[in-house]
Amino acid sequence: MSISVAVLGATGYTGGELLRLLGRHPEVRIAHVTSERYAGKPLRQAFPHLTALPELICRPLGDVHGVEDVDVAFCALPHLASMREVPQLLARSMRVVDLSADFRLHDPLIYRTWYGTEHLATQLLAEAVYGLPELHRHAIATARLVANPGCYPTSVLLALAPLLREEWIDTSWMIIDSKSGVSGAGRSASQDNLFTEVEGGFRAYKVEGHRHTPEMEQELSLLAGSDVRIRFVPHLLPQSRGILSTCHLRPRVVRSQAEWQETLRTFYRDEPFVRVVEPGSWPATSHVRGSNYCHIGVAVDSRTGCLTVLSVIDNLVKGAAGQAVQNMNLMFGMDERTGLEQLPLFP
Amino acid sequence: MSISVAVLGATGYTGGELLRLLGRHPEVRIAHVTSERYAGKPLRQAFPHLTALPELICRPLGDVHGVEDVDVAFCALPHLASMREVPQLLARSMRVVDLSADFRLHDPLIYRTWYGTEHLATQLLAEAVYGLPELHRHAIATARLVANPGCYPTSVLLALAPLLREEWIDTSWMIIDSKSGVSGAGRSASQDNLFTEVEGGFRAYKVEGHRHTPEMEQELSLLAGSDVRIRFVPHLLPQSRGILSTCHLRPRVVRSQAEWQETLRTFYRDEPFVRVVEPGSWPATSHVRGSNYCHIGVAVDSRTGCLTVLSVIDNLVKGAAGQAVQNMNLMFGMDERTGLEQLPLFP
Amino acid sequence: MSISVAVLGATGYTGGELLRLLGRHPEVRIAHVTSERYAGKPLRQAFPHLTALPELICRPLGDVHGVEDVDVAFCALPHLASMREVPQLLARSMRVVDLSADFRLHDPLIYRTWYGTEHLATQLLAEAVYGLPELHRHAIATARLVANPGCYPTSVLLALAPLLREEWIDTSWMIIDSKSGVSGAGRSASQDNLFTEVEGGFRAYKVEGHRHTPEMEQELSLLAGSDVRIRFVPHLLPQSRGILSTCHLRPRVVRSQAEWQETLRTFYRDEPFVRVVEPGSWPATSHVRGSNYCHIGVAVDSRTGCLTVLSVIDNLVKGAAGQAVQNMNLMFGMDERTGLEQLPLFP
Amino acid sequence: MSISVAVLGATGYTGGELLRLLGRHPEVRIAHVTSERYAGKPLRQAFPHLTALPELICRPLGDVHGVEDVDVAFCALPHLASMREVPQLLARSMRVVDLSADFRLHDPLIYRTWYGTEHLATQLLAEAVYGLPELHRHAIATARLVANPGCYPTSVLLALAPLLREEWIDTSWMIIDSKSGVSGAGRSASQDNLFTEVEGGFRAYKVEGHRHTPEMEQELSLLAGSDVRIRFVPHLLPQSRGILSTCHLRPRVVRSQAEWQETLRTFYRDEPFVRVVEPGSWPATSHVRGSNYCHIGVAVDSRTGCLTVLSVIDNLVKGAAGQAVQNMNLMFGMDERTGLEQLPLFP
Repeated sequence: MSISVAVLGATGYTGGELLRLLGRHPEVRIAHVTSERYAGKPLRQAFPHLTALPELICRPLGDVHGVEDVDVAFCALPHLASMREVPQLLARSMRVVDLSADFRLHDPLIYRTWYGTEHLATQLLAEAVYGLPELHRHAIATARLVANPGCYPTSVLLALAPLLREEWIDTSWMIIDSKSGVSGAGRSASQDNLFTEVEGGFRAYKVEGHRHTPEMEQELSLLAGSDVRIRFVPHLLPQSRGILSTCHLRPRVVRSQAEWQETLRTFYRDEPFVRVVEPGSWPATSHVRGSNYCHIGVAVDSRTGCLTVLSVIDNLVKGAAGQAVQNMNLMFGMDERTGLEQLPLFP
Repeated sequence: MSISVAVLGATGYTGGELLRLLGRHPEVRIAHVTSERYAGKPLRQAFPHLTALPELICRPLGDVHGVEDVDVAFCALPHLASMREVPQLLARSMRVVDLSADFRLHDPLIYRTWYGTEHLATQLLAEAVYGLPELHRHAIATARLVANPGCYPTSVLLALAPLLREEWIDTSWMIIDSKSGVSGAGRSASQDNLFTEVEGGFRAYKVEGHRHTPEMEQELSLLAGSDVRIRFVPHLLPQSRGILSTCHLRPRVVRSQAEWQETLRTFYRDEPFVRVVEPGSWPATSHVRGSNYCHIGVAVDSRTGCLTVLSVIDNLVKGAAGQAVQNMNLMFGMDERTGLEQLPLFP
Repeated sequence: MSISVAVLGATGYTGGELLRLLGRHPEVRIAHVTSERYAGKPLRQAFPHLTALPELICRPLGDVHGVEDVDVAFCALPHLASMREVPQLLARSMRVVDLSADFRLHDPLIYRTWYGTEHLATQLLAEAVYGLPELHRHAIATARLVANPGCYPTSVLLALAPLLREEWIDTSWMIIDSKSGVSGAGRSASQDNLFTEVEGGFRAYKVEGHRHTPEMEQELSLLAGSDVRIRFVPHLLPQSRGILSTCHLRPRVVRSQAEWQETLRTFYRDEPFVRVVEPGSWPATSHVRGSNYCHIGVAVDSRTGCLTVLSVIDNLVKGAAGQAVQNMNLMFGMDERTGLEQLPLFP
Repeated sequence: MSISVAVLGATGYTGGELLRLLGRHPEVRIAHVTSERYAGKPLRQAFPHLTALPELICRPLGDVHGVEDVDVAFCALPHLASMREVPQLLARSMRVVDLSADFRLHDPLIYRTWYGTEHLATQLLAEAVYGLPELHRHAIATARLVANPGCYPTSVLLALAPLLREEWIDTSWMIIDSKSGVSGAGRSASQDNLFTEVEGGFRAYKVEGHRHTPEMEQELSLLAGSDVRIRFVPHLLPQSRGILSTCHLRPRVVRSQAEWQETLRTFYRDEPFVRVVEPGSWPATSHVRGSNYCHIGVAVDSRTGCLTVLSVIDNLVKGAAGQAVQNMNLMFGMDERTGLEQLPLFP
């Protein structure tokens, strides 16, 4: 099989990561890359680390409409730009993995509340599949349009999915304290993300409310079978990659740490990319760096009854480009792991 | 005034930080420094950054007993070592600021539970004053023995002290998610704290329970007027200095963010080292690096009712050596700020 | 004494560092700070770490002309902007410490060659004093206009000054391999200096020629008594502060390492801010972080005859703001060390 | 083809990197891993990032002698340990890629001078092939014993090999100023390599002479056809991976930058892992991180005549484990690139 792919918005970090993975995927041919900033220039000017790929010339976004024979387009565009582009791509019979937030929320009112703008392609919302394979594998396989999850939601949903059943957890008071590497903020010039501002400068941000919240609540509510609200507080780590989410939960049942661990282990028994760590060890972002793996750990504090679930992913891989490739694999009937089994880079 | 000081355990990070501050304190003479590892050698071998100080020769711990005219000893020894040493120092009429955990807990049973050993100087527990000036300023002034608080507890107690009154907060479910720079782990050779293991490797640790917990509960219970238990989860940041504590609380009263902020601001109105940040900005560890300041921010999430209080300190300064000097200033009747007004180093 | 100072360009890193030092200088009153970007806003918005200073409101640059009673202005403006401003400041009887490159070069032709523009205030070039106190202390004391040296030149000139006499060194082949922290690149938003681009991404830059070269050659030629040309290659370190310059020299005389070390030590015997490190240890940027100190080490390679001199400074302190304050101290007849004896921050 | 491999010393950083690469090599079966420290324990305890590999149990070094059917052993042992082990492995008909320094130097006297001990397997020195494929590809293919080059020498030899011909360069005065990430120092607990000591603490080390020097001189002399001595000064970067070597050379011929660049480009035209960067850009360690690629740049300074060659590699990949796998590929008649075409991880 040879799948012909386009990457729209190729010169941001998510775009670069898509090319790193797709460039070595055994069944993929990169047919088309777009970048407004580097239009007409070779991709290696934007990304010297990709020099070993066959030469790719960046083209302006509009050019994609004249391209023939693209099987699947990866949209690594900002939200708003994505929902303008996706309908046209579908109309040209491409399948689409959209990495923006534009098709993740089923309810356009919630979109408007959090993104401050009307949704321009509501006709696609019913069709778009939320692209977390561990939850929606079958729907993804046949989807025309997959909405690739946000990085924080991926880490949080994988941590919580096995637990939101049978009222094991008090869903009225779930605290998610997440920490992300700064690549999540993108590659645009910005004073806030200068090395000098970030090094040694751990901080919280969007404490008043982060846009990934409704996406998590949508999926958690589906899992719980009832409306769930969470308190989500993100922080910015002085490192490029990695998300660690610490989920503070109040269980309604009494179970030992070993039992909770077994629950998680059972849930993920057949998953190729999710691992529950050994008792006595805890996940670290460096243990998944550059890979599509997710590591999860769990602890019970017998003094307070608090249940703590910790999960780590690489925000650019399982939190973005790797998951997008996993979705593509599913959409084209391939083994989900194809091109994604690189081991993490440590140290 | 010239106060003659001894620093016991001078070649760890806390010891080095004490010498950095005391070496420029206008009323202090450093009379004696001890280090087992560097005994007989000049201090600048352990700390080339302190080369500009007048030459100090490290001496073995035992030598302190032959020293005359030391007004105050700073004990930067490990726990256990401290409680063996402190009674002898007091017997020689020195006043003592102890930076270990040995005299922070009033109840020796709780000490045994968390530290796994009997307390060897229980006769001093009633006398020792918990050295957080913002809470115990008057008792510190006359104390012979001050137990300098732990770094995490300092950050957490300053965040919560203004709120634990009049049942504003549900004290049955307090989540403290803290993140610390790696200097808190000390200067001993260790594989876990190698640069290669820490860089890009954010992780939680002691998730099953950290020894700073009972110290926080003791002081929070005093403030609340009832027994308080907290869930405390510490994490290790890829940076040398700084603690940020994110306190997730459930208020029992309905107040706006501005009102909570005003509550904090009023509480700390006259404090020289605690600042409540402006609305719309959040504390960052780099804003207090190298200084004795603590910055605090507060947010209310109207969707969930959750109250979030964020505080940052430099773990080696306000969380250790700076607070110790602040305590000394109080003990000797000086302005609390003396020698401590260095501005933070940014970037 | 109370000296009234203005800081022009207060919200860049050099400006912030000037305020950190001047804000705790015992003889200084900060009368005026300018910033185009933050005009009308409190300085603490630009620099939350300076919140503990009395409130300062940023004003636009033009306002300085209406200010009375400023004794000395620190210009932390870009080159070009500086040479437009400085003549007016002098005309208003202020003394000036200029931190740009505009008054460092005596020869306006060399300025044009390297900066690509005509010099607009050539009448001041003869009068401006190159502000490296270790070389020009006496001239600085009486200067109206001091040109504060560049960060790289400070590190290189302190390393080489003691050696460029009596033809000890072959001045026809001097290699300077320097490495700087990224704060030297300033605080403007830039893709190149994002955390993600810098972390783990050590690289050289301006390999074809860096503008600090002629400034070094001017001063080295004065020291050598003949025209000196150097090969200078700068590199960018993944850390915020610090410069280390490795100077590779070919000596014309045969001397032991101990003898070279003694030469350096003798030269700097009475200097308050320059230290020659002990034999067997080497300078590290962390040993001078946040301080005005310079550490120097020297090695002879008997196999090749090569002489290596290593020097470290904090680029924002001894390489910029600290040296500017040192110059001000000299200009106003104070002890050179006033307000500058903070010890380095380690770790 | 399925090659059965053993990795001796599997739980250091080089061992871990070998397993990362070999674990995804399509023609390799990992038969045996040794570690004294983790003997009897699963490898994932030492390296949680390798959890996705099939379970491997670490065995003590001695066990290798009872193992059947190992085709090739990778020795990631310290020097001295290696030369004790290698003769026995060869005697058991294994082929060996030795990653220590023990078989790199042809002359046992030079070994004794730099390593301070007698060589114990001099009978193998004539047979061992210096495993830099770009120079010794054919000899490697048939070798029983390949001595994998040091990390610094790999970066330096690739930079200089194209230039040391026809007396283009003055070989009497070659300055190599190298900078390495701290993973080169290994995984043993050490105070010097703690995060706190390394962060922000760039420094030189072994300025008096580093053991990689004779290895470089041996190969450079072969290339030049005459005895070459170099001045080599290594530095330690605050990052985990990457080496950048800045080679300062004095050419004996006058050529433009474009001509030198063309010389390098021609030399490496058919090399799969070496790239000469575009004019106007410079190599960065982040552009090769996690990969087997080497990027090289060249500059001529017309003012001084100095020629500067810059090269970057990942010290653990092209500087160690990747090169070892490249050598194995050659030894077993495979395409040299097999299992090594992972693209660099950026950011």
